[in-house]
Amino acid sequence: MQQDQVHQQIIDFWNNNMPFNQLLGFKLTRFDAQSSEIRFAWQDKLIGNPIHKILHGGVTASALDLAGGTVAAANIIEQLDEITPQTIASSLGKLSTIDLRTDYLRPGRGEHFIATAHIIRSGSKVAVARMELHNEEGEHIAFGTGTYMVG
Amino acid sequence: MQQDQVHQQIIDFWNNNMPFNQLLGFKLTRFDAQSSEIRFAWQDKLIGNPIHKILHGGVTASALDLAGGTVAAANIIEQLDEITPQTIASSLGKLSTIDLRTDYLRPGRGEHFIATAHIIRSGSKVAVARMELHNEEGEHIAFGTGTYMVG
Amino acid sequence: MQQDQVHQQIIDFWNNNMPFNQLLGFKLTRFDAQSSEIRFAWQDKLIGNPIHKILHGGVTASALDLAGGTVAAANIIEQLDEITPQTIASSLGKLSTIDLRTDYLRPGRGEHFIATAHIIRSGSKVAVARMELHNEEGEHIAFGTGTYMVG
Amino acid sequence: MQQDQVHQQIIDFWNNNMPFNQLLGFKLTRFDAQSSEIRFAWQDKLIGNPIHKILHGGVTASALDLAGGTVAAANIIEQLDEITPQTIASSLGKLSTIDLRTDYLRPGRGEHFIATAHIIRSGSKVAVARMELHNEEGEHIAFGTGTYMVG
Repeated sequence: MQQDQVHQQIIDFWNNNMPFNQLLGFKLTRFDAQSSEIRFAWQDKLIGNPIHKILHGGVTASALDLAGGTVAAANIIEQLDEITPQTIASSLGKLSTIDLRTDYLRPGRGEHFIATAHIIRSGSKVAVARMELHNEEGEHIAFGTGTYMVG
Repeated sequence: MQQDQVHQQIIDFWNNNMPFNQLLGFKLTRFDAQSSEIRFAWQDKLIGNPIHKILHGGVTASALDLAGGTVAAANIIEQLDEITPQTIASSLGKLSTIDLRTDYLRPGRGEHFIATAHIIRSGSKVAVARMELHNEEGEHIAFGTGTYMVG
Repeated sequence: MQQDQVHQQIIDFWNNNMPFNQLLGFKLTRFDAQSSEIRFAWQDKLIGNPIHKILHGGVTASALDLAGGTVAAANIIEQLDEITPQTIASSLGKLSTIDLRTDYLRPGRGEHFIATAHIIRSGSKVAVARMELHNEEGEHIAFGTGTYMVG
Repeated sequence: MQQDQVHQQIIDFWNNNMPFNQLLGFKLTRFDAQSSEIRFAWQDKLIGNPIHKILHGGVTASALDLAGGTVAAANIIEQLDEITPQTIASSLGKLSTIDLRTDYLRPGRGEHFIATAHIIRSGSKVAVARMELHNEEGEHIAFGTGTYMVG
């Protein structure tokens, strides 16, 4: 399998088999070993504060964690000697979040949201990613940093 | 109004008017200026990783953020000169999360989950809380720290 | 006083009156409301691990905290109605670090180090900055995020 | 060698061979796989803010990082099959801080300071510790969380 085929298969898997991501409407739209992108639309059920009608802080954290986790996953796959469904499944099974920091910059208002992640540390055991959340007008809603176990 | 009446009214409001908390099944069961407690039950829709059947990291972060936010809210209310529905609403409208760190210690498995928060810094502008998530068997799933704008 | 005069006076004050910064050889070389820069040279006394001859993690954290604190300070000064030594001293007296996260990316090796900070949230009470540490060869040693009380 | 002999040798090594820890006057006074303790005395050179005469935030971060690193080190040693100077040196060479969060609760005032660390996640690759800084009167100055590479 080619890397881009692998990535597309993982995108399909992630978008169709992750209950919580589906509940929140998260779509993985792009990912490779350098960066990844998650998109989701406003839904009233994502409201945290009913007075202000803004995203719950947990929605923001969830989107950033997913974005960071997918770019960490791409780093795992890139380090595989042999790319097969088995080696991918086995190595992705080792992926877990060690810690996540979210910095809330502006109220989470908008119609569409884009979470992006960039890898800043890539190793055989631990990967670190930086994430951002923007709305469709380019307003910067949140920053994040995630540390992931990858091996 | 007495503090405990106020707390009960806020508990009712929080449990019945917050869409995302209701979506996830979060129940605020106790809160005062020192500590607070959130409980929720396992639901398949909270699954992050379908292979391991564990909570999505975003669910954990959401529960910790809510627990920390409620104990910060109790600190705001305690500092009010006059406790009326208006002063409460006005001051709670100022509550927002500045940043949140979540440390994932063990896979999120269990039937029931309890998130607790304790205040560690209480000021007129900023409050800081430490949070923990356990399952019904007392297994320690996650730690967290949240910094909240309160004034 | 003009803003740039003010900035130069504060740079002089910071570089000549802060015992711990002088102990570590930190020099504030540039700062305004958007970004700031700290430089320091390798010294054997900054070694954390004698086997690997790399910077102590605390040196890195100290440099990032100073860089973030100075850009937060510039934000305080920019919001002053009247710029006098008194208003500056009074407002800088309110500056304090609420929390600081440091992500260590590579071993702290080099002859010269540059810590930079950029403001990502600027408010009347709280400011948030993102920081980076590089060596003279442009190697990226650390990332950081700091939340500061400014009012 | 017995574990307690090993611990004492490492304490001696740490207290006599780490330039930056000696510069700051840090003394490792106790450590095992569950917790560790660092003590240091006030010195004027540790001042960050000359107006308030309080510890530089970097001193606090340095003390917490050392406390967390030593309890992580004890976890490495406990997992060794064979305890010899060579296996200890080899495994401690792998110890490094991945990330560190410091929460500043109160101004760093006092004559003596005690930093303590407790392990909250212990694994073959990554360990996580929670830390606290108090002064001689028991005032709680700072909280911290550190994630360490241990394998």
